[in-house]
This record gives sequence, structure tokens and C-alpha cells, in this order.
Amino acid sequence: MQKTSTLNITTPNDRDIVLTRVFDAPRALVFKAFTDPTLIPKWWGRRGHTTTVDTMDVRPGGAWRFVERAPDGNEFAFHGIYREAAAPARLVYTFEFEGMPGYVSLEMVTLEERGGQTTITNTVAFHTMEDRDGMLASGMEGGATESMDELGELLASMLAREAN
Amino acid sequence: MQKTSTLNITTPNDRDIVLTRVFDAPRALVFKAFTDPTLIPKWWGRRGHTTTVDTMDVRPGGAWRFVERAPDGNEFAFHGIYREAAAPARLVYTFEFEGMPGYVSLEMVTLEERGGQTTITNTVAFHTMEDRDGMLASGMEGGATESMDELGELLASMLAREAN
Repeated sequence: MQKTSTLNITTPNDRDIVLTRVFDAPRALVFKAFTDPTLIPKWWGRRGHTTTVDTMDVRPGGAWRFVERAPDGNEFAFHGIYREAAAPARLVYTFEFEGMPGYVSLEMVTLEERGGQTTITNTVAFHTMEDRDGMLASGMEGGATESMDELGELLASMLAREAN
Repeated sequence: MQKTSTLNITTPNDRDIVLTRVFDAPRALVFKAFTDPTLIPKWWGRRGHTTTVDTMDVRPGGAWRFVERAPDGNEFAFHGIYREAAAPARLVYTFEFEGMPGYVSLEMVTLEERGGQTTITNTVAFHTMEDRDGMLASGMEGGATESMDELGELLASMLAREAN
């Protein structure tokens, strides 16, 4: 069994960030967590923030928009377009923080299952190295780590409920 | 004097297309042609098509949307967000064909003037090599050549009008 609970972040070239993490869950369940609008609020965004799904039309060309609300009341909205949704293996969508219009990245999420564990690989592509490095400098790693931790907790609780 | 009227297209790496062309015009005039909504319909898009400016808010974070209409009545809409507008040297904006939602490129246009001529360099960045190669296969070169030819004709007529 691979070690879970650790988010690995690498920069294999000048414009991508690759995030990988292993979960103790079948990939169908992980894919569901990424594509079911009732599950997104349970893990997406920073810990302690609430996330509301404004739009989520999971099909090629469909839009998504999530609004994250911090405890101080500040809101941060994100949106994009789904390009691929091939359950349970692959999800591709654009990602734009509304506070920085025109800065659009592409997230390519692949899910691989082996021995009951699922490895998520999220390759995030930017238009320029400056855009990529700006995202890294913005504290992306902390936010992504918290989201992935919450996703792990959600998956564990869903599996525990199934087992009972 | 550099030779004008030739559009050069290169692919210097795996995700960019670089288009360059020299015009017999000062760069302030070329910048104006890119940023004045009354001038866009005179050169933008394929020859024989008409282009309507639906939205054009040339400032960082501002939106643009142009609708191109073919002689057979088919319409093709394009939109994006301006990221930089530094007259007369640099214009950066996202570019998205509405027929392919989620496929977003970034155009970085720089204008350099020397001896009364202006060299346009448009570096178009894509999220993946597949996106870049798909754009090349779509006939981009023909469309870009026609647009740049029409821009050259517009600049020549504006300069002739100024001289009279």
C-alpha cells in the first residue's frame, strides 16, 4: 500500500504544476467527490471556509462556479468550463479566480486505482511561467493540501457509512 | 527597410505559436488599430466576413467579444479578457472561440518601431501541445494572413488620409 495523506507538488517543466496524492478509496468514489455538487461543499477550498456551488454542469463545454466564503465574510469566487468528464478516470476543466480575470489555467485530473487505493494526478497548466510561478507564490500549496486533507476525510466517512 | 506583407509563423517550443509581421506604419497607429472598437471591423477576421464588436473594454480585467459573420450567414463569436494594455508597446489578452468553450489561449502582442516601420510579434500560448497543434490544423494560418493583410491595407489608407 502506498502512503496516503501526503500531497506531492512538482514542477516538471516551466509551465505546469503537478499535484499527486493517494487515497484509500476506489476511484469511482473519488470521481464522484469531484463531480457531485452536493459533495463539493464538503471538501473544496480552505479548511474553515464554506464553499457554495453556484453552477456545476459536468459535461464538455459545461460551466462551473464555486464561491468560497472565509470566516471574516470575504468571498472568493472561482469558475471555469469542463472540457472532459470521463468517469471514473479523467476530468479536465479550466480554472479562473475571479479576482484575477484573464489568468486561466487548465486542470487535468486523472484517477488511477490499484489495490483499493486511488492516485489522483492533477496536472495544472499555465499559459506562461510567470503565471505558474505567481500561483505557487500565492500560497496554492497550503490551500491544495487542506482541500486534499478534507477530501480524504470525506472519502473515509463515506466508506465508513457504506460499511455500516 | 524590412520586407512587409509577409506573415511569419513559427513554433519555437511545444505550446506557443509566434506570428510576426512588419507594417509600414508607426506603432501608435498599429496599437490604435488593435484597441479602437471603430477600427476592429475594418480588419479583424477573414476577408469577406464582417466583424461586429459586441464588447471591447480595453483595460486590465476588461472583456472583449467580437462576432464574425460569413457571407452564408454563419456567425463565429470570440471573446476574452484584456490582461495588459500598455500603449503603444504591448497588449495581452485571452482568446476563446465560443464554438470550443474551455479552449483558452493567451495572446501577447508586442509592437516595436524602427525607421518608420512597426514589427508586430504575437506570441500565442496554449495550455497543451495538443491545443496548439489543433489550432494550427484548424486553418489559423490562412485566417491570420488575411487579417494581417487587411490590417496593412487599413494602415496604408489611414496614412494616405493623414498625408492629404
